[in-house]
Amino acid sequence: MSHDVRRRLTDLRRAFHRHPEPGWREFRTTDRIVSELERIGVDEIAVGREVLSTDARMAVPDVEELEPWLERAREAGVRPDVLDRTADGHTGVVAVVDRGEGPHVALRVDMDGISLPESDDPDHRPAAEGFRSEHDGYMHACGHDAHIAMALGTIEAVKDSEFAGTFTTFFQPAEEISGGGKAMAEGGYLEGVDYLLAVHVGLGNPTGTVVAGVEKPLAMAHLTVTFEGASAHAGKAPNEGANAMQAAATAIQNAYAIPRHSDGMTRVNVGRIEGGTASNVVAEEITLEAEVRGETTALMEYTRTELERVLYAAAEMHDCDVTPRVISESPRVDSDPALRDLVGAVARGTTGVDDVIETAEFGGSEDVTYLMERVNESGGLAAYLLVGTDHPTNHHTPTFDVDEESLEIGVSVLSDAVLECSRREP
Amino acid sequence: MSHDVRRRLTDLRRAFHRHPEPGWREFRTTDRIVSELERIGVDEIAVGREVLSTDARMAVPDVEELEPWLERAREAGVRPDVLDRTADGHTGVVAVVDRGEGPHVALRVDMDGISLPESDDPDHRPAAEGFRSEHDGYMHACGHDAHIAMALGTIEAVKDSEFAGTFTTFFQPAEEISGGGKAMAEGGYLEGVDYLLAVHVGLGNPTGTVVAGVEKPLAMAHLTVTFEGASAHAGKAPNEGANAMQAAATAIQNAYAIPRHSDGMTRVNVGRIEGGTASNVVAEEITLEAEVRGETTALMEYTRTELERVLYAAAEMHDCDVTPRVISESPRVDSDPALRDLVGAVARGTTGVDDVIETAEFGGSEDVTYLMERVNESGGLAAYLLVGTDHPTNHHTPTFDVDEESLEIGVSVLSDAVLECSRREP
Amino acid sequence: MSHDVRRRLTDLRRAFHRHPEPGWREFRTTDRIVSELERIGVDEIAVGREVLSTDARMAVPDVEELEPWLERAREAGVRPDVLDRTADGHTGVVAVVDRGEGPHVALRVDMDGISLPESDDPDHRPAAEGFRSEHDGYMHACGHDAHIAMALGTIEAVKDSEFAGTFTTFFQPAEEISGGGKAMAEGGYLEGVDYLLAVHVGLGNPTGTVVAGVEKPLAMAHLTVTFEGASAHAGKAPNEGANAMQAAATAIQNAYAIPRHSDGMTRVNVGRIEGGTASNVVAEEITLEAEVRGETTALMEYTRTELERVLYAAAEMHDCDVTPRVISESPRVDSDPALRDLVGAVARGTTGVDDVIETAEFGGSEDVTYLMERVNESGGLAAYLLVGTDHPTNHHTPTFDVDEESLEIGVSVLSDAVLECSRREP
Amino acid sequence: MSHDVRRRLTDLRRAFHRHPEPGWREFRTTDRIVSELERIGVDEIAVGREVLSTDARMAVPDVEELEPWLERAREAGVRPDVLDRTADGHTGVVAVVDRGEGPHVALRVDMDGISLPESDDPDHRPAAEGFRSEHDGYMHACGHDAHIAMALGTIEAVKDSEFAGTFTTFFQPAEEISGGGKAMAEGGYLEGVDYLLAVHVGLGNPTGTVVAGVEKPLAMAHLTVTFEGASAHAGKAPNEGANAMQAAATAIQNAYAIPRHSDGMTRVNVGRIEGGTASNVVAEEITLEAEVRGETTALMEYTRTELERVLYAAAEMHDCDVTPRVISESPRVDSDPALRDLVGAVARGTTGVDDVIETAEFGGSEDVTYLMERVNESGGLAAYLLVGTDHPTNHHTPTFDVDEESLEIGVSVLSDAVLECSRREP
Repeated sequence: MSHDVRRRLTDLRRAFHRHPEPGWREFRTTDRIVSELERIGVDEIAVGREVLSTDARMAVPDVEELEPWLERAREAGVRPDVLDRTADGHTGVVAVVDRGEGPHVALRVDMDGISLPESDDPDHRPAAEGFRSEHDGYMHACGHDAHIAMALGTIEAVKDSEFAGTFTTFFQPAEEISGGGKAMAEGGYLEGVDYLLAVHVGLGNPTGTVVAGVEKPLAMAHLTVTFEGASAHAGKAPNEGANAMQAAATAIQNAYAIPRHSDGMTRVNVGRIEGGTASNVVAEEITLEAEVRGETTALMEYTRTELERVLYAAAEMHDCDVTPRVISESPRVDSDPALRDLVGAVARGTTGVDDVIETAEFGGSEDVTYLMERVNESGGLAAYLLVGTDHPTNHHTPTFDVDEESLEIGVSVLSDAVLECSRREP
Repeated sequence: MSHDVRRRLTDLRRAFHRHPEPGWREFRTTDRIVSELERIGVDEIAVGREVLSTDARMAVPDVEELEPWLERAREAGVRPDVLDRTADGHTGVVAVVDRGEGPHVALRVDMDGISLPESDDPDHRPAAEGFRSEHDGYMHACGHDAHIAMALGTIEAVKDSEFAGTFTTFFQPAEEISGGGKAMAEGGYLEGVDYLLAVHVGLGNPTGTVVAGVEKPLAMAHLTVTFEGASAHAGKAPNEGANAMQAAATAIQNAYAIPRHSDGMTRVNVGRIEGGTASNVVAEEITLEAEVRGETTALMEYTRTELERVLYAAAEMHDCDVTPRVISESPRVDSDPALRDLVGAVARGTTGVDDVIETAEFGGSEDVTYLMERVNESGGLAAYLLVGTDHPTNHHTPTFDVDEESLEIGVSVLSDAVLECSRREP
Repeated sequence: MSHDVRRRLTDLRRAFHRHPEPGWREFRTTDRIVSELERIGVDEIAVGREVLSTDARMAVPDVEELEPWLERAREAGVRPDVLDRTADGHTGVVAVVDRGEGPHVALRVDMDGISLPESDDPDHRPAAEGFRSEHDGYMHACGHDAHIAMALGTIEAVKDSEFAGTFTTFFQPAEEISGGGKAMAEGGYLEGVDYLLAVHVGLGNPTGTVVAGVEKPLAMAHLTVTFEGASAHAGKAPNEGANAMQAAATAIQNAYAIPRHSDGMTRVNVGRIEGGTASNVVAEEITLEAEVRGETTALMEYTRTELERVLYAAAEMHDCDVTPRVISESPRVDSDPALRDLVGAVARGTTGVDDVIETAEFGGSEDVTYLMERVNESGGLAAYLLVGTDHPTNHHTPTFDVDEESLEIGVSVLSDAVLECSRREP
Repeated sequence: MSHDVRRRLTDLRRAFHRHPEPGWREFRTTDRIVSELERIGVDEIAVGREVLSTDARMAVPDVEELEPWLERAREAGVRPDVLDRTADGHTGVVAVVDRGEGPHVALRVDMDGISLPESDDPDHRPAAEGFRSEHDGYMHACGHDAHIAMALGTIEAVKDSEFAGTFTTFFQPAEEISGGGKAMAEGGYLEGVDYLLAVHVGLGNPTGTVVAGVEKPLAMAHLTVTFEGASAHAGKAPNEGANAMQAAATAIQNAYAIPRHSDGMTRVNVGRIEGGTASNVVAEEITLEAEVRGETTALMEYTRTELERVLYAAAEMHDCDVTPRVISESPRVDSDPALRDLVGAVARGTTGVDDVIETAEFGGSEDVTYLMERVNESGGLAAYLLVGTDHPTNHHTPTFDVDEESLEIGVSVLSDAVLECSRREP
């Protein structure tokens, strides 16, 4: 890889790092991806509404939350046509390289930042070298900036190769809130994909390590739950209320007590609560944020079903109404062993890679599983690989950073794997 | 009152004391009352089925619990016709003295003992003087033996007086388990009653004191609740069970948390629990015994309704069924002030009475309120009076005893009050 | 009463109405009271720190909450000496009229507004006649504006009368949050008071009605409770957390289940909750706002003690810490019957009063009970009287208003009662 | 194997089947084993107290539960010396075959029946062929009768072989209640054991299958928990009680809500509850039976520690005392891979074995793990093998039966494995 290419990858990554945008608000990020794709010269660039199933989006913020980011993007000079196509929470890009007959290979990366103030410690390289987040309170603390750069580098490399077939890259919005995966899976561009590769950097793996395909991402659903009762004066007429506080407390206690399942691991958590007005008023409304997980999609659904029964019964018990809303969710889909082998073989031949791990448990959740599931259902294969990168501190911490040496490794492994796929029978 | 009469009262009371029988099993007691009434000579003696509404009986024991008492009664020589009429839990007697035109006055006493082993301490008079309970494990520890004696004495006194009208005496079974009051209230003999007097001895009032009419007996309901789920191996497949233990625990916690009511005092208690089979099995069945009380009947019913909602929702929450059964209940009815005044005036003129208290709060529950309610609904007046008696220890304790001097006072106050009622316009 | 006096009462009340200030932030209100007292000419005016026991203040807002009100007061031209004396949440005034030998008579009124946006409906008189609140989001919706005006009018009337003795008026801050009563009770000026009168307008009583002395204000305590545990990833390591959410839920369930008490009415409520960060994180911190009440101070304390046991045990159960802080409280103290009789007699002779009710149950809580308790403990008498006023809607609603005709009635009853007290033997 | 030997195995198994005895009450079973060992002629027979650590016994029944079984054994002619040595719940036997220099090899079988009435369906072979349980309500429903027969057969076979070294057989009592394993592990006879084999029949494996060594028996602890509060009249003075019912309900809810653990599977169950006296009495005493399990011993201990915290805090919350007693427990110990390989190799060469499975998850709990742990700690190897047997219905059901063809297979595999061990270097 030329020094220029290497330099461009680093510059790109730093440019995205400076402007992190949270889920469904990646207006500026979308714009910059489009510009880069135009520079590279691909056969099709589809944006926002064109690549998403509007109804399948999850965890979309309301207008008040979208507006400031839209305004900021406008001020930063984002093109009006991009703003139009991404309006109302429709960020994201799909790029297609069409090289005639051959398999349809796809790559998926994510593109959103998170709500976390970035460190200004001089030991934190982005601070020292001037590419720290310019969006106060937000940060690329999970490496999605590196993912975008790698994807752009991979497109360029594939374009310059002997690749035959179709190569489609998905820049998916709103991964952190499990909001964009389903919408992109149902947006139309996955149709006919034979091989899907997804990538993540780091996760404890150092530069030089590649995990060929992860397994056991947890199936997950995130719910917002509102109990509505009736307020009353707690001293004068407690019996006239319908106590949402008691309903919520009963629900919480019983949620954690949902039976363990013989088929495997389940999880449930109520992580946030707020409601009521004052100490002397029977609480009328309480809102919870909860999640359920399972080692399999079925186990997650078992837990969600049990949780919903607990919620409805707790409301009924205290004469309240309850509205559980599934904000986002993702199934469990493991990497395909055959595609994993292909990635492993490619990685073993890649400069800079000194350790190839066949598979590893993912532990957390990832909504790329929607895309993987879709591809599997149509007869295609999918794998989720990890490209190691030295990171000084954990993901989702203010001093997270990536080793930019890994960008080049990522591009090599991905572009070679795409090429290798195109040589297989679809 | 002659020495003979006084002696007969004491003998009678001691005879009943020796043979306490629990609710709906007062076969021998019924028989003895019938014999005494025949000796006295009244105009009508109705027994068992003739005086009860079968369907309105509550807390009736099953055959296994009735049988040994029936057998014991048979062995003691109880008359076959009494056994016939009281079969299947239909104890109780009504005696009518018919003296032509005039008001219809009624007296109600209770007749059951309780499950409590009587003390054999030589300081306990029944033990010392040879009239301790001969039914092991059972005892007249609330003075119902004295009530029966007083009622018989009162009938005799009224019969010998210038009383004009109808005088009906109700010997009610199963008061301790709140089981007989409703059945007697609906048994037919209360029809047309203008004045109803009920009586209790003691309750902390010494010999010489009379409370003319109590108020605020608590309304009460006693429930048996069974949760039914599905058992499962707690280690291998906890998810396959429907955990009646969790349902019961949720119900108990929320039962005690039923909101206090602005209209007054309420109570709820789960006093007994049993269920499940072994530590490694998800519990299939749990049974609770619970009660609710209220300062008024409406407050008791509020609490019962809330309790039932809690029970059904707790069952639903854990995929169980629940069956709450109201075993017995009693409303709140206060003594009528006018009748109370009449009793007070009579008591003030009675030899041996040195303190007349107009009214007092009752505190507990009493199913005579069913009879009082019935009389009130038909336009009659009812009062529940207390005849003081020195009692060495509390009611419902193994060394409870009454001061037999109070028997005569009770007969005087009751018979004079009955006579006084007959002089009033109905 | 002259037309001028009547006019001044109305003007004063409207002036206070325009500038409602919440508890411990009554800087402008204090300033205006001081100015009026100087106009009237009393023998001593003590302000803020001079009249309060600093340590006995409760529910004092922190600096961030005080500052904007201080700034607003400064801009409105409040005198620097008043700002000095009221600094750091020390509002309130005491005015003394010293007329030589004679009893020490005292009057207490409150002076804070509440957090409630006032209606701008043209049917709402303050809106129609231009004296609606100028402090957005705050309102005199409980008549404290009228109380201040009445107190000033009473001081003026007493000063002009043949009153002999000492007359001390307490303008108490922070009544709505039960924050100021104890601090003023312990501030020194109550010493030697023989008669204490407190007054409230309305509470359902129409213009022309006076309640001579209320009874049964509920004893109350308001608590803020913080559970602190340890956060953890709910999917990856739930066992590493100490779940404050579960601790709070357990505490809430058991708080409502604190046993009812045989001595009388108790109440408990958790009216507000907030905590945790996200659905996938074990909650580290949860804050509750709770209150306990009792028909007597002892019953309130029983409930508070039980609540604290529940809180500590719930924290212990989930390996969390808990800090319950009593924010404010008030005991139960009834009006003295003798002083009540004096007020009733005075009221019966007052023009405009057509109905004098001897006593009524208060139902809610009031921290004037701290002052009443103090006076009682020193051998003095205290009564809390109600001056009826037609109010179109309930207290604490956006369209609450008082009938200004009642201002004059209030001044007459209060000043005549003060005068009458001075004629009694102390 | 000769027809005679096969016949003896079947006869023996049926003899034991006819007389099932529950844990620590295997008096007759012990006696019969001793007789058979004397017939066979071994070098040492140790009984009861001689083979158990008295203090390490768990779940020992009290005298009232032991007595009827002792009496029954006496009547059946059990030898006085056996009754002496097994007195007070000290059943069990150890048999030693001493053949000079060589490794010390051990075999462990269990010997208790369970509380379950055996089916008298004519399709149930023990019923049809006359060897159904003669102890009403008790049954060998888990194959321990077959285990004893196999062990006796194995001793005989080893004795007749070229075995060199020491062969010790443990007939362990009270396996079903996890009561005997620890006591035997600490009884002295395990000292110096180089190889320990344990065996179970069936568990879903058909005749002809052998599982060479199981893994993942769950670590388990069984607790009895008693809450003690104070009773009170639920209507008149609920505040005077300390409500053990509320404490238990709080404990149950929170027990099931103990956090899942990142290291693996945990279980908790409250399977039995009983307490309180009547609906109108605040419950004074409630007893629970609970268990905790874990995929590892550490996970079980985590859950037990959490459960104990829940119990103590729930008691404290309701002013009660609580006494959790660990009745029995067992650690997790997996079969040693090397010894498993040896067993597998032997099994593959055994007539009648057509399927050898290297390992399988055990799923449940087994207190042989105490013996395995002891052997491992001293440097020896242990394996727990399964000998398949067709069983018409599940273990622990009234129609459970074993295929007697498997007895011979078991003896062959066990005796050959013992012999093979003796050929290894210890």
